[in-house]
Formats: sequence, structure tokens, C-alpha cells
Amino acid sequence: MHVRALWWSGDRLDLIDQRDLPGRTRVLHLRHLREVAEAIRSMAVRGAPAIGVTAAYGMALAHREGSFRPERAARLLAATRPTARDLFVGIEWVRSAWVRGEDPLASADSYRRKIVEECHAIGVVGAPRLRNVERVLTHCNAGALATVEWGTALAPIRVAHEKNPDLFVWVDETRPWLQGSRLTAWELARERIDHAVIADNAAGLFMNRGEVDTVVVGADRIARNGDVANKIGTYEKAVLAKENGIPFYVAAPWSTFDVGMATGSGIPVEERRPEEVLTWAGIRVAPRTSHARNPAFDVTPARFIRGYITPDGVIRAAEVASAARRHLRPAVGQTTI
Amino acid sequence: MHVRALWWSGDRLDLIDQRDLPGRTRVLHLRHLREVAEAIRSMAVRGAPAIGVTAAYGMALAHREGSFRPERAARLLAATRPTARDLFVGIEWVRSAWVRGEDPLASADSYRRKIVEECHAIGVVGAPRLRNVERVLTHCNAGALATVEWGTALAPIRVAHEKNPDLFVWVDETRPWLQGSRLTAWELARERIDHAVIADNAAGLFMNRGEVDTVVVGADRIARNGDVANKIGTYEKAVLAKENGIPFYVAAPWSTFDVGMATGSGIPVEERRPEEVLTWAGIRVAPRTSHARNPAFDVTPARFIRGYITPDGVIRAAEVASAARRHLRPAVGQTTI
Repeated sequence: MHVRALWWSGDRLDLIDQRDLPGRTRVLHLRHLREVAEAIRSMAVRGAPAIGVTAAYGMALAHREGSFRPERAARLLAATRPTARDLFVGIEWVRSAWVRGEDPLASADSYRRKIVEECHAIGVVGAPRLRNVERVLTHCNAGALATVEWGTALAPIRVAHEKNPDLFVWVDETRPWLQGSRLTAWELARERIDHAVIADNAAGLFMNRGEVDTVVVGADRIARNGDVANKIGTYEKAVLAKENGIPFYVAAPWSTFDVGMATGSGIPVEERRPEEVLTWAGIRVAPRTSHARNPAFDVTPARFIRGYITPDGVIRAAEVASAARRHLRPAVGQTTI
Repeated sequence: MHVRALWWSGDRLDLIDQRDLPGRTRVLHLRHLREVAEAIRSMAVRGAPAIGVTAAYGMALAHREGSFRPERAARLLAATRPTARDLFVGIEWVRSAWVRGEDPLASADSYRRKIVEECHAIGVVGAPRLRNVERVLTHCNAGALATVEWGTALAPIRVAHEKNPDLFVWVDETRPWLQGSRLTAWELARERIDHAVIADNAAGLFMNRGEVDTVVVGADRIARNGDVANKIGTYEKAVLAKENGIPFYVAAPWSTFDVGMATGSGIPVEERRPEEVLTWAGIRVAPRTSHARNPAFDVTPARFIRGYITPDGVIRAAEVASAARRHLRPAVGQTTI
């Protein structure tokens, strides 16, 4: 059985604290809206689809606490992180059910099931693209931890691996937070999928040597024109894939698509604390007087992307707007809160 | 006064142990050839010009020890690391003096002076390229620590900074060994040159935002056609610079040029221990069963390089072969030892 990142447990949301992996598998028990908001902000849970589901349950917990109106609960959760579209979709899914008088917990459950089903569908849809592939490269963690189950980028890899057990995965370590070496490698190691961790700097070398056949990554937000915000470094790998003639795919559920955003230039890019770059396990790795910049995401222009692996098929940039409109539900946008 | 990476001290070679920076400035005292070889192999000293000078003094120490023939001492030192051309040039400089009956220590001193003078000249030659530049990006450490004094990439930055104190440097942290955050930032902080450390993944974002005006890096070996072996990640940054219309310069003394190497594809790329990627300060950052690949260098094709900042002028790829032939002395090639 694959990893699950989070689950409802009677009266609380349980989730794996991703900050402690791979050394320790600690489960957080969240009973209050503010605990959920802090778990998202501190990256105890991360990954666009997973924080969408987490926020959906945060709304359900707010309803049970009894002291929040739905709009206020939505505002608190929406303020945690700015880039991933799914956060706002998950919040709005439950907020709208709440104001319609439906059960927010049942609504959060239905949102979770929808995301898990879509991720499984992404695996089935994307696996044929890996049929004749020996070595696939991925960046960051777009696995079960990022999506509740299955993953986005890792879903096609999981499904393809069942028929092609020799499939090999290059895992970018993904500085500064090491989602690749800490999380993606952890998922792949559990399922005995052959892989090697590399410094992000080395991806270009292996592409240039002809040792990468395909690249698949997840996404945090996809604009109407197909531009993709995803973990910092994605843009670099996409440019290098194009330079070396390697197909570059983005895998995402519909909750990641933002038809209200014309191009990637409008997507807000979160900048996190410099200390994530300047220190390691409490040890300062740069001089005391050195500064750092720490953007958590970048934007990859659509022209670098061969295809978008969605739950309903692999589409091209020109098809993003119409396909997303057919499948989207309204979301709490940052401009409306 | 700028940093010095190493110096002769009466009867021994003293050098700053670069593994401990920036937390601790520890000086190693080396009295034996084998200690010098181990300092190079373990990266207590690194940077192509600096390991060339270190090896030159290693030859001088071997002569003083009295138990080595020059060829054997040369072989031991040449086996430490495969990629940097300078290592073999520094060894051959002293070996040839030794077999001619000259004083090996005087020869090592003259090699050190030559490298320091060439690096200073690189600064003077390269500084005009930074005259109208606000923000320059560099990768790895190509500073005084890598070259004894001045640096290669950092030499033009130092000289330009005297006239343009607002010059700002983007410092790629340079995984897995963090030569950027640990060493380059340390040099810049000492001289109060404004800078920010970034995860290697973020260089592309800042280039794409128009916040990088020029890139300058060092080199470990430059082939006759202008292809450049340098620290892993250099190729990625060069491709991204070209994609974003940003000039990309390589700065190097003549000892880095290898006219015997037709193209970069022949340059041996060292692959180091996976543990450099998989652990951090003794902490495992990937699962126990995960593998890693750890190439220490990559090769940047000449077409991505705007110019080569040499001690005798900024040249283009087409000029590399003839210019290098004019300035080179024979070196111990790996094929001849």
C-alpha cells in the first residue's frame, strides 16, 4: 500500500510531519483551525493538492469549534501560503458547502476523495508516456506526501513501474528544503523503485549525457496559457530539458489550474525565510553577515512544457484554458479574501 | 588585505582547511608529500589554481624528504584528482626544475608567484566587463581560496568593486559541497562586498526576472575548442544565462587551458562519494537504502560562453587554441604519468 500523507481520525486530522522525514515518521494530531493553519505555514504538510485537502479539513474543524464564521475561517487558512492554487480551491469547496447548510466534514471528505481519484487517474493517464522510458527525472516531491495518495508526478511513475520494474528515477534533492532526498526518495525506497538522488546542479549533466529520457514534475498553479508555478528549480530543469531535446511533463489535478490567471507572471511567488538557505540542522553554513534570498517557487513558461498530464488526458498548452474551465469549481481567489 | 589560501612557512606548507569554513579558520601544517596529496584528495584545499600550487609545493616537500624520485612524487600527486588541469601543470613545473637540478622549492615559489600575478591580471582585464553591471552571479568558489590570492571569477569582482562599491554578487550556494555559501560568501563578507546566497535552483528565476546582469565563473580545465569543465552546475547556469540573454564569462589563468584536449568531451569528470549528497553534518538526509550520484564537475560547451577572461585579455572561443599555445608551458598529462 502506498503512503498516505493525512487522514481523518474520528475527531481530528492526522498528518505525517514532513519536516521530520526520512529520519522519523511522526504523526501530528490537529483538532483546531489554527493548528491546521500552522501546519501548512510551517510546511509540516506541503504539496499543492495536500495543502488543499488539509485546508478543507481545517474548515471542517473550524465548523466543529463553533467559534468561526465560514468567511473568517477561510481567510485564516488562505493567508498561510500564497502560491498553490489548490489551497484556495480546497477552502472554497468546504466554505460553500458550509454556507449551503451541508456538513463541512462530509464536504472535506468528498474533496479528499476527489483529489485521490484524480491523482490515481493522472497515474493511469500518464503511465503510457513512460512506456519506453528507462530513466525519468523528477524535481521536488510530487508524490503521495504532496497529494494525500498516489502523487501527481509520481503517480505515472508508480503505475508504469508495475509493468516496467526496471524504471529508474533521478531524484533532484531540491534545495533548500530537500523534498527530493527527504521525501521523494523515501516514497520510492518504500516501494523499491530504483532511484538515485542528485544535487540539483547535476540534472543538466545527466540530461546532456543522454541519461535522462523524460522529466515529470508536479505544479502549484497553472495559468490559463499553460505557464506553471512549481517548486524553485523547475524552470531551470525545464530549460535544460528543452536544450537537450527531452520531453518535459507537468502532472496536476484540476484544483491546480487557475483559469482566472492569464499568464504565469501574475502568480504570487512566496519568498520564505533566508534561514532556510543559511542554516542546516541549526548549523550556520554561511557567514553571520551574509544575506540570502529564498523564493520557494518559480514560473516555467508554457513553451518549455511538452504536455500536461491531467486526470482526463494529456493536453497541450493551447488546450489548458478550455479543459480547465470544463473541470473547475470556483475557488477562493486571493483577490476576493 | 585579501585572503590567502596557502603559504610557505620555513619548512612546511601552511594552508587554510576549507572544510571547516566559515565556522572555523584552521590552518593545516603540511611537511610531507603524502599529507599534501591527502589535503588535495579530501578537499582541505580545492580550486584548480590552488591545487596546482599546492601540488607544486608537494613536489618541493618530496624533494626535501629525500626518499622520492621526481617521477614517483609526480605520480602520487597526479593521482589525487582527475579534472583540474592546473594540478598537472603545477606538478610538471617543479618536476622539470627538479630534474634540471634546480631548487624545487624555488621553483614552487616561482609557480605560486606566477599564478598570483596571473589572477591579479585577470582582475584588471575583467573589471571593465563589470563597469556597467549592478548584479553579477557566480557559481562555486573561484576566489582567493581557490587560487592562493585574488581569485579568477572573484578577481574582476574585487577590482570592479573598488570603483563601484554598489556592485552586488549573487552567490550560488553550490551543492553538494557549498563552496558558494561557505567560501565565496566568506570572502565577500570579509571585504564587505554586498551579496546574497541563493539555492542553486533559484539562479534561473533571478535571471528570468532580469535581476542578473552578468555571470562570471572559474574553470577547472578548458579544452582547445573553448569547452569548459567547471564545478557541477556551471553548465546549467550557462544554458540559463544564454536563454535569458545574459553574458556568461569564464575566468582562468593559463594553467587551466589544455591545448592537448580537443573538446570538452575528453575531459575526465571526477565522481565523488555518494555520501557528500546523502548526508549533512553527519545526518542522513535520504533513506538508508537510497543511492546517489555525485559528479563533481560538468562540461559547458563553448557556444554558451561569451568570453574567456585571461591574464592577457578577454578572448573568444575561436582564439582559445592559439592564445593558450602562446602562453602555456608543458604539463604532466594524465596519459603520460
